[in-house]
Amino acid sequence: MIDRADDDAGAPMPCDPEALLACMRRRTQIAPRHLLAPGPDESQRRQLFEAAATAPDHGQILPWRFVVVPLEARGRLADAFEQALLERDPAAGEDERARARDKASRAPFLALAVVRERGDGQQHITLHERMASLGCALQNMLLMAHAQGFGAGLVSGLALRSGALASCFGLAAGERAVCFVAAGTPARRKPARQRPLPEQVASMLQGGD
Amino acid sequence: MIDRADDDAGAPMPCDPEALLACMRRRTQIAPRHLLAPGPDESQRRQLFEAAATAPDHGQILPWRFVVVPLEARGRLADAFEQALLERDPAAGEDERARARDKASRAPFLALAVVRERGDGQQHITLHERMASLGCALQNMLLMAHAQGFGAGLVSGLALRSGALASCFGLAAGERAVCFVAAGTPARRKPARQRPLPEQVASMLQGGD
Repeated sequence: MIDRADDDAGAPMPCDPEALLACMRRRTQIAPRHLLAPGPDESQRRQLFEAAATAPDHGQILPWRFVVVPLEARGRLADAFEQALLERDPAAGEDERARARDKASRAPFLALAVVRERGDGQQHITLHERMASLGCALQNMLLMAHAQGFGAGLVSGLALRSGALASCFGLAAGERAVCFVAAGTPARRKPARQRPLPEQVASMLQGGD
Repeated sequence: MIDRADDDAGAPMPCDPEALLACMRRRTQIAPRHLLAPGPDESQRRQLFEAAATAPDHGQILPWRFVVVPLEARGRLADAFEQALLERDPAAGEDERARARDKASRAPFLALAVVRERGDGQQHITLHERMASLGCALQNMLLMAHAQGFGAGLVSGLALRSGALASCFGLAAGERAVCFVAAGTPARRKPARQRPLPEQVASMLQGGD
């Protein structure tokens, strides 16, 4: 369609609307246990974060960051998941602990999304604006992972709010872990799900009195 | 690049990664006062909300919605903006009130983004997840508006948290107005701004002890 990727302000967009919508529709949530090697290589990972970095950012305060968990750090993440379980349930049995640990080994690409909620002297930029910016960054990463030919998904869970995870990732005061972004080769293709219709997501403000 | 927009699970993505990244980089914030007619037509507006509707949505609870403000309802919005100002500053003068009202007339496409924070019996899905989903929807709309050849921007402000605005838009208990999405023909082209580098948005969890 176009063979250049420059930023000329007057140039036509390199994606036409139909192709872009098809790309958005093709994106579907894949759970990390179904995301196998190979995952994005070094230059593809870089591209994922280049995509994230184009998110709208009111005041250019960059209120979020990502921490990639490479394969050699999955043991540390497993420890954090097990500790997080024990924070919630000190009596958790061996099986449950093994299941908690196991989650750390899934998906070749795994990155924690962290939002800075406060503590930067920019409180006129609300939590909602900060989270909207992070959401934009996440969507860019998901779309890009799909364009690269991978499957991807967002993962949340109770462990995200544990002291063990905050400590493992060195979260600062005012920071909060929001979700993991996982990407890899999908074990099986999954059809796109039915999406809400435009009339289900938007209504019209009536004019007059 | 591809001439169909179907959802075949096995088909290649209709956007290649470089074209998609160029598209993301081309998106830039345009303030509503610089967004002129013509704006997106009926079918383009529909496409904007089709794009929004493909956002990830944990539990498929659809925790957000949009309310479009058509031209014939701008007078009502002007009233709400003026009332919102008077809530904050009952002594606001005529000039200030006129400026508040004037903001309602900007941008041919204007829609309020609303998040449902609570009250739906789905509190296991946190505010952060709900806002991440809305952020994804917003990014899809911004990217789509650009692909359609328009400029677009997100707008927040103190009026969003006013009783006047909540009443104008019929917000339910548990709902919160997050921002406006504006789109139209940019008065002037604006070069894409410098974005943070991947190493500024992502770090690596160290392995080992």
